[in-house]
Amino acid sequence: MADPVSIDSSALHEFIDGAHLQTRRQLFDLLGQERFRYVDTRDTAAYRQTVLEWCEELARHGFGALAYPAEFGGADDVGRSIAAFETLAYHDLSLLVKYGVQFGLFGGSIYLLGTRRHHERYLRAVGALELPGCFAMTETDHGSNVRDIETVAAYDADRREFVVHTPHTGARKDYIGNAALHGRLAVVFAQLVSGTARHGVHAFLIPIRDEQGNVMPGVSIEDCGLKVGLNGVDNGRIGFDQVRIPRENLLDRYGGITEGGQYTSSIESPGRRFFTMLGTLVAGRISIACASLSAARSGLTIAVRYTARRRQFGAEDGPEATLLSYTAMQRLLMPRLATAFALDFALDDVIAAFAASTPGETQEVETLAAALKAFASDFTVQTIQACREACGGQGYLAVNRLGRLRDDTDVFTTFEGANLVLLQLVARGRLTEYREAFGELRPWKIARHVAARAATRVTELNPIVTRRTDAEHLLDPGFHLAALRYRDERLLASLARRLKRRLDDGMDAFEAFNECQDHAVELGRACAERFVLERFHAALDRAPDTLRPPLESLAALYALDRIAAASAWYQEAGYLEPGKSRAVRTQINVLCRALATEATALVDAFAIPDALLAAPIAV
Amino acid sequence: MADPVSIDSSALHEFIDGAHLQTRRQLFDLLGQERFRYVDTRDTAAYRQTVLEWCEELARHGFGALAYPAEFGGADDVGRSIAAFETLAYHDLSLLVKYGVQFGLFGGSIYLLGTRRHHERYLRAVGALELPGCFAMTETDHGSNVRDIETVAAYDADRREFVVHTPHTGARKDYIGNAALHGRLAVVFAQLVSGTARHGVHAFLIPIRDEQGNVMPGVSIEDCGLKVGLNGVDNGRIGFDQVRIPRENLLDRYGGITEGGQYTSSIESPGRRFFTMLGTLVAGRISIACASLSAARSGLTIAVRYTARRRQFGAEDGPEATLLSYTAMQRLLMPRLATAFALDFALDDVIAAFAASTPGETQEVETLAAALKAFASDFTVQTIQACREACGGQGYLAVNRLGRLRDDTDVFTTFEGANLVLLQLVARGRLTEYREAFGELRPWKIARHVAARAATRVTELNPIVTRRTDAEHLLDPGFHLAALRYRDERLLASLARRLKRRLDDGMDAFEAFNECQDHAVELGRACAERFVLERFHAALDRAPDTLRPPLESLAALYALDRIAAASAWYQEAGYLEPGKSRAVRTQINVLCRALATEATALVDAFAIPDALLAAPIAV
Repeated sequence: MADPVSIDSSALHEFIDGAHLQTRRQLFDLLGQERFRYVDTRDTAAYRQTVLEWCEELARHGFGALAYPAEFGGADDVGRSIAAFETLAYHDLSLLVKYGVQFGLFGGSIYLLGTRRHHERYLRAVGALELPGCFAMTETDHGSNVRDIETVAAYDADRREFVVHTPHTGARKDYIGNAALHGRLAVVFAQLVSGTARHGVHAFLIPIRDEQGNVMPGVSIEDCGLKVGLNGVDNGRIGFDQVRIPRENLLDRYGGITEGGQYTSSIESPGRRFFTMLGTLVAGRISIACASLSAARSGLTIAVRYTARRRQFGAEDGPEATLLSYTAMQRLLMPRLATAFALDFALDDVIAAFAASTPGETQEVETLAAALKAFASDFTVQTIQACREACGGQGYLAVNRLGRLRDDTDVFTTFEGANLVLLQLVARGRLTEYREAFGELRPWKIARHVAARAATRVTELNPIVTRRTDAEHLLDPGFHLAALRYRDERLLASLARRLKRRLDDGMDAFEAFNECQDHAVELGRACAERFVLERFHAALDRAPDTLRPPLESLAALYALDRIAAASAWYQEAGYLEPGKSRAVRTQINVLCRALATEATALVDAFAIPDALLAAPIAV
Repeated sequence: MADPVSIDSSALHEFIDGAHLQTRRQLFDLLGQERFRYVDTRDTAAYRQTVLEWCEELARHGFGALAYPAEFGGADDVGRSIAAFETLAYHDLSLLVKYGVQFGLFGGSIYLLGTRRHHERYLRAVGALELPGCFAMTETDHGSNVRDIETVAAYDADRREFVVHTPHTGARKDYIGNAALHGRLAVVFAQLVSGTARHGVHAFLIPIRDEQGNVMPGVSIEDCGLKVGLNGVDNGRIGFDQVRIPRENLLDRYGGITEGGQYTSSIESPGRRFFTMLGTLVAGRISIACASLSAARSGLTIAVRYTARRRQFGAEDGPEATLLSYTAMQRLLMPRLATAFALDFALDDVIAAFAASTPGETQEVETLAAALKAFASDFTVQTIQACREACGGQGYLAVNRLGRLRDDTDVFTTFEGANLVLLQLVARGRLTEYREAFGELRPWKIARHVAARAATRVTELNPIVTRRTDAEHLLDPGFHLAALRYRDERLLASLARRLKRRLDDGMDAFEAFNECQDHAVELGRACAERFVLERFHAALDRAPDTLRPPLESLAALYALDRIAAASAWYQEAGYLEPGKSRAVRTQINVLCRALATEATALVDAFAIPDALLAAPIAV
């Protein structure tokens, strides 16, 4: 077994956070300044004002426009922009979300859904935060199911204007960041209607406040009020009463309307057009996954440093033992620490794939972004809770930050796509991977083909392997990868089989999928877990020799922890014999114990500046 | 399978909350009054003041002294006092904790550890909240390991006084409720020293403020500051600088000192004396378990009512489907709803056992209290998080209360004994259940005997049973109980075997237990789960016929959910064959689907008044 001794934390830091290291350091320097000191978050009005000013300061230093073209003041570098977002997530998370709303969702949708005239007119002002704005997609009655939003934008050919209207209060735009106080322009998603023809959801630019901050005529705005966390962000509800906007305010990259009211689009299928427009959310999902990881790293740094020092009980007549020397504490923290390392490489690779992708051809990246967003945000909420409990009463003091970290990240499991919905999206994405082969888009029908192929795709079980319990085998990366791939493939095949059986029996497609929904969710998670391990192994191949031992131990712990978590399933499938399942658990304890002795060096590799970490028990 | 149709919610309410129904209703009436309306919790000073006034109002109505003897204004009814606590937990949880500190911990320890002169002098004033006080056990450096606290109370025979001293800042009393602002008298735990003899931890009454609220000479108090939740409670740190108190201020029920400085005690063993004094915590642990359940019920009521109304997506051309009609949502909420019912009966029985127990003879009740406190508080934190996520963005609005419920109950997993420590206490308790048979108190040695007995105690596995997958068998209460008992017994036996092997090899006892710590924690949980099912079955026996079908379904769902959660272990043990493990999962889905249609009637049986539930999405 790899013995992780004398870890070089700064070399490890450069290895895991090497991309855009310069940007990260610039941002850390800025955030470490006195003006970015954490504020009392109970005074909501003052907090919101501070967060706005922090955002303006970031824009002044060029961090607002990183993803936009150079001609509009940007750096044309989406990878750098996500690295900045990830770094910001070590600081106040209201600032992170306000920043993400303004520059990512609002500016990003103008950039991605708009055309040249929109870019020229708005992008520079958005990136400089001279024009604060909103991304108004969600409605009170439609959060996950945004295809059925009810706001209408009807084209009036006589006046060459759109008339935007909210038919009832449940159709108001809800939870919109920047809406309650600061936003002046909003990207509003609405059903485009021309004459009697409905063309589906499109994005429109609608002024909601004038330069003095007065709400525009026909627009009504209500403050969402106090939230569980993120109270530095001014979320609001927006209603439109027959609000008229010029034809040019349609963001018309994927669909436009002629002056006479004729609809035109480069994408024929309304379904595909809708999902292409939703592609603006992909960057957001990747960013939230990255920010989740940063928050988990903050929590783990605090908990590991505290439990490595804190002593309680011990052998008779000896000194008391550190909390981190206890098996139960190691089991609580070490697999999560390993997962925090593992996630990093997967996210780096998805960012690279996203940066290299072309709009409309992002199916694979979309599936991965959904899988990792769900996996990372679930992981983070559970991890911060575990860290809070590991730190006991000290963890419950506000000054040690774990409560706010949890309260602020909690909604990461909900926004930019609720995790349960995203994991089903992943399952559907996996089912449609076969569409090229079958020339068929409907997942229901594809399921029939996948099922037929299943028998040949799934690796045969080898009775010698299912019984091996020696350490050499249990620590073999080949075993880990085979196990996580087997689970992913087999869940896909069996889901397809189960769907097919129901469809063959004449069941309605919606009901068939609902009956297998827990299975689909499990497939989504298995897909994320498998991908994360693959990217971890790829990273091991390029790791310097000195870093390989601890990274190999972390990769093994991550993999075995996932295998143990699914052990009931693996035993059902005959992939693990009972004795092997027990041996996996024992091996996890051995890895935890070894890594616990190096845990502080490992969290030091996250290199979170003390000014940002701030928790007195950890700095 | 039992078909739970047309549930009579109010009959069900009377069945589950029938004990002390009158007290519950009185309290609900009081808490529903305008003066008890929830306040803005961000202004900590105002919040603390309001909570104090609420507490005074409760005392005025006689709710402070319920557990004390009638001669001191009480009702001499510990069961009624816990029922009041459980009911209070539907309201503001800072009020609950302040109430618990004053009347339970502070007053309760004077009552249980003091003698007649203490009762006569203090109890009436404590119960009326004319004398606000503290329970000062925890120190900064010693939270779980309170046997090693460092505050010293040295007897000065010349002046017949104790000199109480805090040797360093880490030995200050920490996290003490009522200390930062309102407490005037404190029950302080300290090492009793007389001459050169050390007699272990004892409790002393020390005035910390005068009647005007001025801090007493030699006493220093620091505010703990903002916490993650419960900010209506004024927690503080207390230091003592050679503070002198009269000899009579020792609470001397289990140990006293003569004027000349001679130590006397009715309990010979210092270890047993210590644990007897710690017995004051048993009522606290039971109370926290009950309060956890109330908070979980609030969360479940909110989530079930919202998801039963909220619609999103659906079959083509049909209306959108309710969230609660989705399999994944049912799996998230229904097993937790079943557990909320299950826990109720176990808690009722532990309260009854506690009320009937005599001090010093509470080993079994202590073990159960520890098990249920850990089980209930873990359950509640996870359940409220699930409810928050089930309610999506609405769940993230402060007004819908789920965030505060989680933030306030979070520390329930830590205080009154950290859950990981309590679960080990349960394991040790289980090991010592054999002490009568062996006349031996040290768990390490008992382990050897248990191990020897293990083979005969564990039920033989029957290959026909391990393979049965028919619904009749899967829904059979006999199967459920056998499975949960088997797991509990077998984990106990194998823990004993593992400890014995290590001790036989000469390993230090502390290290041996640490190597098996995760096993011990698992045993603690299994013990709680088994006990909860036993008490649920006992309740079914006395349930009226009309209520039996839904209760049987809930009991089956609770049991199968626990079996499925431990399916990896059951398969390892050969207790479930793979096909049966799959069948259990399928059966859970069937039960979830059936119960989901009755979910609102089931939460209506919790009968939480709208004024207390308060969440707009649920009332």
